[in-house]
Amino acid sequence: MTHIKLTKIAQSLPNAVPFVGPEALERQRGVAFKARLGANESTFGPSPKAIAAMNAAVQETWKYCDPENHDLKEALSAHLGVHRDHIVVGEGIDGLQGYLVRLIIEPGDAVVTSLGAYPTFNFHVNGFGGDLHTVPYQGNFEDIDALIAKAHQVKAKLVYFANPDNPMGTHHRGQDVAEFASKLPKGCLLLLDEAYADLAPPEAIPEIPVKTPNVIRMRTFSKAYGLAGARVGYAFGPVDLIQAFDKVRNHFGMTRVSQAGALAALADQEYFKHVTGLVAQSRTKIDKIARSNGLITVPSATNFVAVDCGRDHEFATLVLNGLIDQGVFVRMPGVSPLNRHIRVSCGGEQEMAAFADALPDALRSAG
Amino acid sequence: MTHIKLTKIAQSLPNAVPFVGPEALERQRGVAFKARLGANESTFGPSPKAIAAMNAAVQETWKYCDPENHDLKEALSAHLGVHRDHIVVGEGIDGLQGYLVRLIIEPGDAVVTSLGAYPTFNFHVNGFGGDLHTVPYQGNFEDIDALIAKAHQVKAKLVYFANPDNPMGTHHRGQDVAEFASKLPKGCLLLLDEAYADLAPPEAIPEIPVKTPNVIRMRTFSKAYGLAGARVGYAFGPVDLIQAFDKVRNHFGMTRVSQAGALAALADQEYFKHVTGLVAQSRTKIDKIARSNGLITVPSATNFVAVDCGRDHEFATLVLNGLIDQGVFVRMPGVSPLNRHIRVSCGGEQEMAAFADALPDALRSAG
Repeated sequence: MTHIKLTKIAQSLPNAVPFVGPEALERQRGVAFKARLGANESTFGPSPKAIAAMNAAVQETWKYCDPENHDLKEALSAHLGVHRDHIVVGEGIDGLQGYLVRLIIEPGDAVVTSLGAYPTFNFHVNGFGGDLHTVPYQGNFEDIDALIAKAHQVKAKLVYFANPDNPMGTHHRGQDVAEFASKLPKGCLLLLDEAYADLAPPEAIPEIPVKTPNVIRMRTFSKAYGLAGARVGYAFGPVDLIQAFDKVRNHFGMTRVSQAGALAALADQEYFKHVTGLVAQSRTKIDKIARSNGLITVPSATNFVAVDCGRDHEFATLVLNGLIDQGVFVRMPGVSPLNRHIRVSCGGEQEMAAFADALPDALRSAG
Repeated sequence: MTHIKLTKIAQSLPNAVPFVGPEALERQRGVAFKARLGANESTFGPSPKAIAAMNAAVQETWKYCDPENHDLKEALSAHLGVHRDHIVVGEGIDGLQGYLVRLIIEPGDAVVTSLGAYPTFNFHVNGFGGDLHTVPYQGNFEDIDALIAKAHQVKAKLVYFANPDNPMGTHHRGQDVAEFASKLPKGCLLLLDEAYADLAPPEAIPEIPVKTPNVIRMRTFSKAYGLAGARVGYAFGPVDLIQAFDKVRNHFGMTRVSQAGALAALADQEYFKHVTGLVAQSRTKIDKIARSNGLITVPSATNFVAVDCGRDHEFATLVLNGLIDQGVFVRMPGVSPLNRHIRVSCGGEQEMAAFADALPDALRSAG
């Protein structure tokens, strides 16, 4: 008996775990974080009605989920004003991005993204043998013109663009995003990641007819709706592309509790508005804390704020480690020059107080 | 702008939803099922301690899961007596099978399974362009010798084998399964699907050293542990193969509630034993109901029983539809000659009474 040979693509992929969660850091440190501000989760939590719905659904966890996600799709259809045939629900945006890349990227196909944008998207593109091409950010913004030019240059099959952006929190105007799509090469799909759209100003949301053949939009219940641990995302776009997900998706992959939680969270728009107000307050608070320590922040349309530590990556890393040492979990952008920032998620009074307490020491010990 | 072209493999795949859930049937019928006995779920539910743990975890659903599944892997390590490096946790056996096929099957690679075995496995093999070869069952049993012969004949990279079997519920002796693995061609992996192993007699469980390079075993919390809607499966096998899952898996794909539920369910072995007792009683009950209607059953090592309707597929389909019309959800094997049976999941007194009530009418109206 011999060892089993992996596919050529799988052989080429690193074996390492590419994503380190806060629990791993807690196990290393031997103590829990005081403030969990690194993953842009919503410390405000989901709607109490979503919690009640999930608790009720726990009793039914012996049943598989509805593989059609029927009720949630109907609710999203009403919410978005598009027919349910244009909507697919999946195991978070991460899961949906994996399916999308698998559906359209052959080994060697060109894919374009911004250098320093969402690493999980890159993980999927590499995972299916796609050929990643990147363009740098322009300051703190993804560079639409450069993405378009690169897409034409490399004959891209797929372009990734997040609006608002992660990790910087900036956004482009909706009309510029709509134009972006119209300027891509023939046969090139725009994956518009709108994970943070629910938290952005209305001007950031493009008006793109859902039938537009080269745009797919993805949103999530992980951010504004406070359900990161439930893994519920959705995509909407042209029917033929959306229905192709049925070819490959894990049909019984949703959990019953998550379906119930997302449905109830979406229905409680009053709580949703309450949370977006708290997020806006927290953005202001993070900016205030940063300024009182002599730092500046990047204006954000999301539930996090990039804080410019004012020097280089090495310094920002020391600040980040100083915060973690004091029990405040934050993360930072992955590439230069963005990585002179730390990325701080919004949170409630307790989390903001912990950040305010820890930042001066972290800056001092960073030198 | 043009429509987006799918990959060659994706183009070849059917667009249709391959799996119809009971909720879809309920929506068609306009009324809920009285007894849900079609998907081998556990109507006995999970441990009350698992329910309590899930209810507590609901409060933390704003947090992403621990991507390492650390605590559950530690518990499984103790339970199985193998080091955690030999274990991967994933979104149900369905999710893990998708990852495994992706890791080792290139387009055109030969894969062997039994004709009428697990359709989701076939879905994944087709989904990655593998070349499926099947051998018929021998009576109500998967045919080990034929699987071995076919694997050599087609130079298979992967062989699927479920022990106990689904949809027939039969099992082979553990020592025969262990021998099976040793007789496969060089470089051929045995995927041993043990979804029902927790419900089988000890003699069905093979002793295969976990380091054996050509065997991977998969188990689930969906059956005996009553957590189908939570999507928690695990695989164990040689370290190099297990760790390769990190190359492609959806690292944050588990839900926080499901991790908590599985951990608590595994810890409550007393309740687990209680359920296996109830399942055994229900198997006897299904047999009794069948016999009192002049039918025979296939002896089962699982939480379901295949009932031979005594005639052909057409007749069995009429019986199945007659049960569904009366609010009793059951399923049947997908291919001839297995499909003269209906497959009835175990259940409590209420479900068994509903089945006992509905069967005579279903047989009568089937003619």
